[in-house]
Amino acid sequence: MHILILGAAGMVGRKLLARLVQDGQLGGTPISRLTLHDVVAPEAPAGLRAPVSLSASDFSLPGEAERLVSGRPDVIFHLAAIVSGEAEADFDKGYRINLDGTRRLFDAVRAIGEGYCPRLVFTSSLAVFGAPMPEVIGDEYLTAPLTSYGTQKAIGELLLSDYTRRGIFDGIGIRLPTICVRPGKPNKAASGFFSGIIREPLAGQEAVLPVPDSVRHWHASPRAAVGFLLHAATIEGARLGDRRNLTMPGVSVTVAEQIEALRRIAGDAVVARIRREPDPTIERIVAGWPRAFDARRARELGFTAELDFDSIIRAHIEDELGGRIAA
Amino acid sequence: MHILILGAAGMVGRKLLARLVQDGQLGGTPISRLTLHDVVAPEAPAGLRAPVSLSASDFSLPGEAERLVSGRPDVIFHLAAIVSGEAEADFDKGYRINLDGTRRLFDAVRAIGEGYCPRLVFTSSLAVFGAPMPEVIGDEYLTAPLTSYGTQKAIGELLLSDYTRRGIFDGIGIRLPTICVRPGKPNKAASGFFSGIIREPLAGQEAVLPVPDSVRHWHASPRAAVGFLLHAATIEGARLGDRRNLTMPGVSVTVAEQIEALRRIAGDAVVARIRREPDPTIERIVAGWPRAFDARRARELGFTAELDFDSIIRAHIEDELGGRIAA
Repeated sequence: MHILILGAAGMVGRKLLARLVQDGQLGGTPISRLTLHDVVAPEAPAGLRAPVSLSASDFSLPGEAERLVSGRPDVIFHLAAIVSGEAEADFDKGYRINLDGTRRLFDAVRAIGEGYCPRLVFTSSLAVFGAPMPEVIGDEYLTAPLTSYGTQKAIGELLLSDYTRRGIFDGIGIRLPTICVRPGKPNKAASGFFSGIIREPLAGQEAVLPVPDSVRHWHASPRAAVGFLLHAATIEGARLGDRRNLTMPGVSVTVAEQIEALRRIAGDAVVARIRREPDPTIERIVAGWPRAFDARRARELGFTAELDFDSIIRAHIEDELGGRIAA
Repeated sequence: MHILILGAAGMVGRKLLARLVQDGQLGGTPISRLTLHDVVAPEAPAGLRAPVSLSASDFSLPGEAERLVSGRPDVIFHLAAIVSGEAEADFDKGYRINLDGTRRLFDAVRAIGEGYCPRLVFTSSLAVFGAPMPEVIGDEYLTAPLTSYGTQKAIGELLLSDYTRRGIFDGIGIRLPTICVRPGKPNKAASGFFSGIIREPLAGQEAVLPVPDSVRHWHASPRAAVGFLLHAATIEGARLGDRRNLTMPGVSVTVAEQIEALRRIAGDAVVARIRREPDPTIERIVAGWPRAFDARRARELGFTAELDFDSIIRAHIEDELGGRIAA
């Protein structure tokens, strides 16, 4: 099986890659070739007994998508995107990569023809939803984004469905929950604190909480995200029918519930490293975000996530901290 | 006020044009200039005391959209589209006109800058919805099209909202009901019979009904459609908030109810001109169409349509038949 990953150098891409290398197979079929692409060169994985091609370019440039799919990968993971903040700050770049790049990739698959019909897994986003929203968002709720990033992802979803209906590829779009606990350094994303208030205290560092404890949001671990991708790559496409875009399951918790889970697992001294420093800007942005989903279709189709926030914290401690907490 | 109409030679475009010429103004402001565009040259209207520019081209070609908006129209009616059947039969043409053309138009407005921010009225379609659907579709129901045409319209809606949110133009997308009674000759559209079973009998001709009497659908007259367009062109944009795409009000009736309305207005002899000739293909297509909407937002924003099918038939007799029925 030949697998192509676009966005292989990103956090989710690297986690996926590590898992594929560890498994050596996907859906029971040995991996015979990996093509890894990103705007910066992805790292070559160690330990895979199959050829790996590394590639760095702007995949939205003419000819790039054609080059990437020319090896006719059986499974394409399309994780590449300009993130929300940058797509909002740079209108042209966001549309060029997130819309034109995605469409060029889809059209490159179409141009091959000759019965070529790969599985194409597209990572979409909760940003396809925009306020006002119900407290719990169901599978039939309108996608009315309030950012250019969300608009571009919603358009990608529509194209994915139509190209799949046309038999050009067998596409599945998965709307990832906010990934928590995100490994690595604190970043400037408005959502950064959701991970920061767990990650930094567990590492012995102070974390800033800029919103009230009552803020509720939808989370899944990096480990769960990789599980979504693998399941999306191997599920029988016909089971999805015509609606090819799915909100992934997750855990809906308030910040207060996140903190209490941290206290149960790591104790008061760790929780004491969270410092409350209200930031009205972040508070306002987060107020427009979804709080909970009824991800029924995805669950019925076998997508699984953590059932509580304690499990999300434990996954972080196991996967990132070697099981150790800074007391 | 300078008005640009794209798709001015189509049925709705010509009806809109006739009304604008008759009114001589839009929203209380005299029309100072009209620019009419279509792929075939639109007819010059008689009776308008203002300069009219006629233009025929493929508006999706590079430079065309820029040329069309270079006169900085205050209101742009974007009615141009490859229709459903053709967009399904010709993948490239549908995407080129309905998606790329629309985006180029939007980007041409953006390229002008300098505070230029016209009202842009975009005609969308019920085809943005796809089965399975509830019996009555509300304003927050998912747009999950099952045709390339519906996909392209849904993408147009998303772009319209984002460009409006960005302040590039002040856009409103209106999803037109099936227009009934459509004037003119019978056509090959799967929806043609909805108009045919009224139009032909009233003109003394036989009409074929290919579906069961129990089929329910959503209708508005050409007169109502023009009313939607005028209201969309003049309503205060801020009243819509961020959700700029609206399902227009209409009348939900079964074919049986259409026929009984025709009987009330024109009598048994006219109804006797309807011949039942089941067509399983058309029946299957129509079974996937929406049956009724709760168009609450549009009604609250002052969009009005006929309240019953009798009024739709009367509008046809008044507007197309000079008040006369072929007995």
